[in-house]
Amino acid sequence: MGPHPAVAAIRLAVRRVLHDIATGQAAEHGGTGHTTGHGAVAVAHRTGGPGTAQRHRGPASATAPLVLVACSGGADSMALASALAFEAPRLGLRAGGVTVDHGLQPGSALRADEVALRLRELGLGPVESVAVTVGRDGGPEAAARDARYAALDAAAERHGAAAVLLGHTRDDQAETVLLGLARGSGIRSLSGMAAVSGADGRYRRPFLQLDRQTARKACLVQSLPVWDDPHNTDPAYTRSRLRHEGLPALEKALGKGVVEALARTAQLSRDDADALDTWAGQAESSVRDAEGELQCAKLYALPPAVRRRVLRRAAIEAGAPAGSLFARHIEEMDRLITGWRGQGAINLPGKVVAQRQGGRLVIRQG
Amino acid sequence: MGPHPAVAAIRLAVRRVLHDIATGQAAEHGGTGHTTGHGAVAVAHRTGGPGTAQRHRGPASATAPLVLVACSGGADSMALASALAFEAPRLGLRAGGVTVDHGLQPGSALRADEVALRLRELGLGPVESVAVTVGRDGGPEAAARDARYAALDAAAERHGAAAVLLGHTRDDQAETVLLGLARGSGIRSLSGMAAVSGADGRYRRPFLQLDRQTARKACLVQSLPVWDDPHNTDPAYTRSRLRHEGLPALEKALGKGVVEALARTAQLSRDDADALDTWAGQAESSVRDAEGELQCAKLYALPPAVRRRVLRRAAIEAGAPAGSLFARHIEEMDRLITGWRGQGAINLPGKVVAQRQGGRLVIRQG
Repeated sequence: MGPHPAVAAIRLAVRRVLHDIATGQAAEHGGTGHTTGHGAVAVAHRTGGPGTAQRHRGPASATAPLVLVACSGGADSMALASALAFEAPRLGLRAGGVTVDHGLQPGSALRADEVALRLRELGLGPVESVAVTVGRDGGPEAAARDARYAALDAAAERHGAAAVLLGHTRDDQAETVLLGLARGSGIRSLSGMAAVSGADGRYRRPFLQLDRQTARKACLVQSLPVWDDPHNTDPAYTRSRLRHEGLPALEKALGKGVVEALARTAQLSRDDADALDTWAGQAESSVRDAEGELQCAKLYALPPAVRRRVLRRAAIEAGAPAGSLFARHIEEMDRLITGWRGQGAINLPGKVVAQRQGGRLVIRQG
Repeated sequence: MGPHPAVAAIRLAVRRVLHDIATGQAAEHGGTGHTTGHGAVAVAHRTGGPGTAQRHRGPASATAPLVLVACSGGADSMALASALAFEAPRLGLRAGGVTVDHGLQPGSALRADEVALRLRELGLGPVESVAVTVGRDGGPEAAARDARYAALDAAAERHGAAAVLLGHTRDDQAETVLLGLARGSGIRSLSGMAAVSGADGRYRRPFLQLDRQTARKACLVQSLPVWDDPHNTDPAYTRSRLRHEGLPALEKALGKGVVEALARTAQLSRDDADALDTWAGQAESSVRDAEGELQCAKLYALPPAVRRRVLRRAAIEAGAPAGSLFARHIEEMDRLITGWRGQGAINLPGKVVAQRQGGRLVIRQG
């Protein structure tokens, strides 16, 4: 009898994102079952049946690639840690874990040590608990996220990890799409989280197409204790309000498929935004004249969606900080092209000034 | 003292969408205040002040272009009718109205006659009440919409109307975006309703950037009686649930700007989808070989967002009905290109079959 369907689902999801790392490993080590490691012996064997991958058993070689799991102790990332602990040795990989102590709640250090202990109990190693100081930039959620990723980046560098797995589920993705929708700043902000992101594709999100309920179930049937972060139910946090009130109300109005539809929207929007960025990149060079100035007539001839992206790129190249450049700035620049009636110079963030000079749009940092 | 701000807002919104029709009219009639009509005399005069357009007073010439308002008797379309009644004669246009009796509620015929009477009281003419039979295709809301637009199209043709105004507000637009989001079928379904649509840009939605509250207020201060359609509050209807439960819950979670953000998303998504459709149109011809067959290698080289659109276009050209072609069909076709492992032919709606034959993707109706 195989594992519970929820456990099978989380393991399959993890196996899929480790494929390229494991393949690289198999190639490096000859993929013959013969190991070159020190002390540990990995024995390759076939479990039989069509489509069953070659599996390694026992601890991987100490020189095998290391995969880390970022774990808060919550159900999603505990399920992820358990699946990684199961799959990594079978793929000839080492598996470790990192838990970040944000220092935002009393007893958080103790909590982080507990999570690290549980990760070790799962057989992961190295395991680290890292304390960070959360700043205030961009609000409490953004500041905590920034501190967390900085700590994960540092841990990945320190241990030379090939990848860091993150436990975001399809439900998290749906929430992220709605948060992006609330900004009303276009399809890039609807594209949610990427399945693979960061330097060299370091961060991977195996559960992005898996629902939160499956992760929770997998913990239950494996008797893994999970910790429910009180922040996740604190209505002071936008995401928490969305999770416990906004999304359920949407599901009630629109039907149960909303979370899946939002996740699919994320993927489609991401591909669309990527394609349009590519187009804008090519268009940008074609609309510049010999002196590198933007030609208004050529900008005018572009589709609005491409023109707006070219203008945004040009403003950023001139020194405007991307994060401070809003839709209204781009619209105002666009009116210099499509609604020209002798407007004056436009002030953009980062002391960047855009103005029309004859048939050219000149964007300079003042 | 000018009109109440809400009344000024609805009038300005209507004036803006009539501009091109009125300009055509001014050109035809010389724009001199001299009329060529039979019986009715339009007197041009300036009301003074910068930016004040030339206004005509009194009924427009019987040969002047006719603009119809589609009116349910609800606050949005009653406000629209009142603004059209005010603006049309000032722009040298004739203004009429159509109300559609969907026959879905007891007494709906009487109700439609009442609405027609109110439109005449506003000074509109011709005014028509049109009874339709609502089918069942696509669910009750889609069927009612189809019947309504067919009746409006017919009325526009009958009267030779230059435009038909629809009272959809920014709130309706936000709801439409969420309904599209629930389909999870990409950014085209997020683009909501167009400001101008239909044959020759017949349908215009002047209130698409105006909130429902302003329309309601404009009715109140003009003492216009409005009718609240019980369907609008009937939880059996998806849109009604969205309006009364889904959107308020989202606003509570994400803040008051949600409706505006959704409306902005609609506009940005529409422009993006248009640009990508243009690209796909150009790409489609470039990936076909001399015999007009799709070349897999060239399809592979396209960005995924463009490739999927090319595949969709090709399937529709081969005879697949656009409305039955879902994301999963396109994904399956896409795997013939990006995940080729000897798959068999794929059955698409409309008895269309897609299969890979050597380096070509062949799509044919069977």
